[in-house]
Amino acid sequence: MTKTIESTPKQDRFRMPGEYEKHTGCWMLWPERTDNWRNGAKPAQRVFAQVASAIAQFESLTMGVSAGQFVNARGMLPPHVRVVEISSNDSWIRDCGPTFVVNDKGLVRGIDWIFNAWGGLESGLYFPWDLDDLVPQKVLDIESYDRYKAPMVLEGGSIHVDGEGTLITTEECLLNTNRNPHLSKSEIEEILSSYLNLERIIWLKRGVFNDETNGHVDNLACFIRPGVVALTWTDDKNDPQYEISHEAYEELIDSKDAKGRRLEVHKITQPNTITITYEESQGVDAIDGTIPRQEGDRMAGSYINFYIANGGVIMPTFDDPYDQIALEKLSKLFPDRSVVGVPAREILLGGGNIHCITQQQPSG
Amino acid sequence: MTKTIESTPKQDRFRMPGEYEKHTGCWMLWPERTDNWRNGAKPAQRVFAQVASAIAQFESLTMGVSAGQFVNARGMLPPHVRVVEISSNDSWIRDCGPTFVVNDKGLVRGIDWIFNAWGGLESGLYFPWDLDDLVPQKVLDIESYDRYKAPMVLEGGSIHVDGEGTLITTEECLLNTNRNPHLSKSEIEEILSSYLNLERIIWLKRGVFNDETNGHVDNLACFIRPGVVALTWTDDKNDPQYEISHEAYEELIDSKDAKGRRLEVHKITQPNTITITYEESQGVDAIDGTIPRQEGDRMAGSYINFYIANGGVIMPTFDDPYDQIALEKLSKLFPDRSVVGVPAREILLGGGNIHCITQQQPSG
Repeated sequence: MTKTIESTPKQDRFRMPGEYEKHTGCWMLWPERTDNWRNGAKPAQRVFAQVASAIAQFESLTMGVSAGQFVNARGMLPPHVRVVEISSNDSWIRDCGPTFVVNDKGLVRGIDWIFNAWGGLESGLYFPWDLDDLVPQKVLDIESYDRYKAPMVLEGGSIHVDGEGTLITTEECLLNTNRNPHLSKSEIEEILSSYLNLERIIWLKRGVFNDETNGHVDNLACFIRPGVVALTWTDDKNDPQYEISHEAYEELIDSKDAKGRRLEVHKITQPNTITITYEESQGVDAIDGTIPRQEGDRMAGSYINFYIANGGVIMPTFDDPYDQIALEKLSKLFPDRSVVGVPAREILLGGGNIHCITQQQPSG
Repeated sequence: MTKTIESTPKQDRFRMPGEYEKHTGCWMLWPERTDNWRNGAKPAQRVFAQVASAIAQFESLTMGVSAGQFVNARGMLPPHVRVVEISSNDSWIRDCGPTFVVNDKGLVRGIDWIFNAWGGLESGLYFPWDLDDLVPQKVLDIESYDRYKAPMVLEGGSIHVDGEGTLITTEECLLNTNRNPHLSKSEIEEILSSYLNLERIIWLKRGVFNDETNGHVDNLACFIRPGVVALTWTDDKNDPQYEISHEAYEELIDSKDAKGRRLEVHKITQPNTITITYEESQGVDAIDGTIPRQEGDRMAGSYINFYIANGGVIMPTFDDPYDQIALEKLSKLFPDRSVVGVPAREILLGGGNIHCITQQQPSG
């Protein structure tokens, strides 16, 4: 049964596995807030159900849902998806959920970071975020896993690990004054190392252009396997993403990982510019304190925001010619997995993508 | 993962075990409605926490709780109690929860009966009861157990089984027009037999005097083990319970169980009359449509309303001289279990007792 442990995962020889390591399953949260998801969240719910079904082909999938949406979600999801009541303020379990860590003996525990809705009262995306902040505890209670309470604001989407001691992240997010202003860069490194069991942290400067998360790395770059990274890309010098991707590329190929390897970096060309339509903007309740969804706003589309399942990869598609190119590239990079595309525009409209709405639960 | 099965447990060779058979654990629901539980449900919450702690000495205990009470319940319960979000209209999981059935191969499934809050619109105890009616599905989803949807209104507290084909119940409840007016007695027997895998149903006439459940058997009589029954008792001819208990005694000793055994019946003298005090009545929100809690009302106190755990029995006490007598009797009847008393007046004030707020999950 769940207890809160006072030591750190590193002290107890637990580590965060790479996403490509074996999973027990995956967690998601059901979208419903009408000030973020258009048309009563119905289009988003259909896409979340598609993502859930796609993942459930490969591994167990648990959907957390509020009391009010339980019957609707249960009805929209296939029977083999587990539906449990978990209230939340929105549906980004990558960011508000627990980070699972494992040890050599097959034990699994969870890290419960502090969550402040991507910036707290200074520039967070909504208020309150009290239910989101309880999601890790609720997930861990259901699984009867012990919990580490980490003394730092962190969203899961702001980090990627290779499972062998290396983490990549961005300064734009982790050093942002709206996250942990009282902590220095080296104090943040110390906490990350203690909780995720790291020896090497690779700092990129900025995340994807106009990403409202303050540059989460999971939209920009990720590990394909230890030593191998994928990076969102554009060759268009007039695109604001050009400089960001090129800068990240240089930083990545100049880096060595915890095992002393130079990183192999694969470029995945981003989709064409995606902007919010008038009709889409009109479907969202305009509420003070929630980030507005306005016609013409550019969304942070990227193929990097995929989810790696047991034997599969669930990749966002955007009805764009680059979809097929990304799909082929990922299929080559993951020769042992089936790459499945899911149309993800509706998730993008809510401010994230497939990786942001999923959280893997590694096997012990 | 959870699917709904169209056949019946009997067809699939599943049966409901006796409560004294081995459990995986126990389920409860956290009390909070202020129109039933006095003083904001705080005294009841303390007693529910005591019951949960007492059970958790013997077996795993999961507490279902609404989003709004999650943090409070988590704080009031010991760390080894699992707390999960399950919204409900009130906290009687014996009645609204699933009935677990098992087969010889160690599989466990759940029966989801129709729940109508002890009488529906005719004479139910509150409205609405939509969340209560979803509790079985939520419990089964968390456990990834398959579900039978039974075509009948039934509360778990209105039946007791010996696990060997025998069920005891009361006509006052199961034949009440506020439950299944469209079903005849023999149709009800047919459904009970198909879903619980029975060969013998013993009908008692009436439950405990003034029991607002319409005479649930679990306050009147229960199996100690196959062939052995305990019955609430009084020798006071002026007590309205006198005739009920004597009548039930005659019915029980005249009965044979599914194995052809005559039942051995043990009398457990009831506590002295317990009535609601003025102060207690004043702590409850007076709301139209909820059963009122009025000064001087007699409550249906009985020692029979205990919970059998792995190696333990959790028995209600009432600060009454008969507590000790009941405790000694139960200790003799359960020589291999520790009998633990928990002061239960606060549960009685809400309309039930320890058995009513618990639901065992048998081992496969």
